[in-house]
Amino acid sequence: MKKYQVVGIGNAMVDILAHVEDDFLAKHGVEKGIMQLIDTDRAAELYGVMGPAMEISGGSAANTIAGMAALGMRVAYVSKVKDDQLGGIFSHDIKAQGADFDTPLAASDHPAETGRCMVLVTPDGERSMNTYLGVSEFLSPDDIDVGIMADAEWIYLEGYRFDGPDSHAAFAKAITACKGAGGKVSLTLSDPFCVERHRDAFLTMIRADVDLLFCNEHELMSLYQTDDLSIAMALGAADVDILACTVGERGAYITQGGEEVHAPAAAMHVEDATGAGDLFAAGFLYGLTSGRDYLTCGRMGCVAAGEIIGHIGARPEADLMDMFAAEGLV
Amino acid sequence: MKKYQVVGIGNAMVDILAHVEDDFLAKHGVEKGIMQLIDTDRAAELYGVMGPAMEISGGSAANTIAGMAALGMRVAYVSKVKDDQLGGIFSHDIKAQGADFDTPLAASDHPAETGRCMVLVTPDGERSMNTYLGVSEFLSPDDIDVGIMADAEWIYLEGYRFDGPDSHAAFAKAITACKGAGGKVSLTLSDPFCVERHRDAFLTMIRADVDLLFCNEHELMSLYQTDDLSIAMALGAADVDILACTVGERGAYITQGGEEVHAPAAAMHVEDATGAGDLFAAGFLYGLTSGRDYLTCGRMGCVAAGEIIGHIGARPEADLMDMFAAEGLV
Repeated sequence: MKKYQVVGIGNAMVDILAHVEDDFLAKHGVEKGIMQLIDTDRAAELYGVMGPAMEISGGSAANTIAGMAALGMRVAYVSKVKDDQLGGIFSHDIKAQGADFDTPLAASDHPAETGRCMVLVTPDGERSMNTYLGVSEFLSPDDIDVGIMADAEWIYLEGYRFDGPDSHAAFAKAITACKGAGGKVSLTLSDPFCVERHRDAFLTMIRADVDLLFCNEHELMSLYQTDDLSIAMALGAADVDILACTVGERGAYITQGGEEVHAPAAAMHVEDATGAGDLFAAGFLYGLTSGRDYLTCGRMGCVAAGEIIGHIGARPEADLMDMFAAEGLV
Repeated sequence: MKKYQVVGIGNAMVDILAHVEDDFLAKHGVEKGIMQLIDTDRAAELYGVMGPAMEISGGSAANTIAGMAALGMRVAYVSKVKDDQLGGIFSHDIKAQGADFDTPLAASDHPAETGRCMVLVTPDGERSMNTYLGVSEFLSPDDIDVGIMADAEWIYLEGYRFDGPDSHAAFAKAITACKGAGGKVSLTLSDPFCVERHRDAFLTMIRADVDLLFCNEHELMSLYQTDDLSIAMALGAADVDILACTVGERGAYITQGGEEVHAPAAAMHVEDATGAGDLFAAGFLYGLTSGRDYLTCGRMGCVAAGEIIGHIGARPEADLMDMFAAEGLV
């Protein structure tokens, strides 16, 4: 048995969450519903005008890993935080949830700080994310412990990491180590604009190495440059073994081996959409690594996503296993 | 017109909030429902065993000032944070709420960090607080701007500050400046064990200078060393002009000039009791500074307290003025 069921690699973030009205977004140049990368000056400017906030550990793949840890899975996370207060908070929270997290810290004299994401939640529950990558940008191949990757049934790669200078090389090192030991590779596309920035690199990796692709409809259509989801699904299904595409309130479609199943969304009030995709992946991977069929995997993903959108923050608060049980999934 | 309606002085804290079961408290030596002062070693130990958390600006008087700022009052806060990430978060949140906060920062080479409070919330909504004072302990008379104190209709002093080495002298300086310019002095007893530690100093200040005393029944009975609330109320009423004593789910009693009124508690689900007393004071002072009678002041206090216990964190989320309007108070 491998030590880890899933090892995730992503950008470590502390989310700075605040409620805003829609006109705040317009006034301050924040694009609604997507992730924008911002530099230190813009981060200071935006923080200066936003209202009181709360801080909760986030980061897309980190949320997924935390969700799997909450489900009792054997998981580890790989990312870069600094030896600063926010880095301490991030490290505490993911380890306290039960994940291993041993990536070397950026030293306290590193010019950047631990990454943070200002998440502005509008009354409709939509989140608009403004990400200061900080030291998370500097994860390098040196930070990839090949022993950990070889000891993983699955690795889970965060698309947002394509934005870092050494990230492609770091991913390649992780993939080689994982696949060389018989492990499998999953990837999340993360964001349609991230896909836009790195489409060729995404496609190259997907076609060469990815066994399981997570995405939402907008990301998938961006990847294949089409506005027809069924075309994008067909192209995706040809490129990977398993394609799991969430479609918002309609749930998710999963295709594998020429068969497509539809998992309906769990009925939930949308308080804060942050982390819905991340927790879908957590629930899906729980199902997959415990031998469930793809429909059950998809339903587990939808239930986990439903939990996370019902409250502020992208780390689970309710007992996900109890929720699976209530739906007859376990 | 004075620049400020209320200026608060207290310990600046970032709350680190986590849900725990009751047996966690017993296992890790945390006394339920009160505030315990802890040192850096104990803070690290407790943080190491507690689960994932979220961070929200707190601090008792700071919560009160934030509540009044949310009600549109002219308020300022005086306290010590460091030039570190948590200090930046604290400063942002209280200023973004609309309060002035210009106390000089502790330098980045100060051996202590910005204060924090690990708030462990049990399923009954009770909060058990573990406070690392950090640099907030070192607020000195030098940090008291007499111009600000002279320009305040009321100053609001946090009882927890009696624990700091220079705090009594700092309070004395603030009181002299405020009273010398015709302002009035309010004090909150904060915590029964804090009262126990500093009973003589509390009584001396109360009898000499305090016009309005906030407390709950346990604090007041501790102050006067009696287990009979009516005796404690009578003794308190003899020592101050206005006595406002909260009594949990029974609301609050206010005595002034030989008359006592009872304000019933607002009916609310208790999610997290953190900040109930702080927001009672905010609502009460809103009423007082806008010329309401004491019953209305008390009811405003109870409505504001009811808002804060309905969610995690001790800073208001709902529109308090709307809630006052719904109760026919404005």
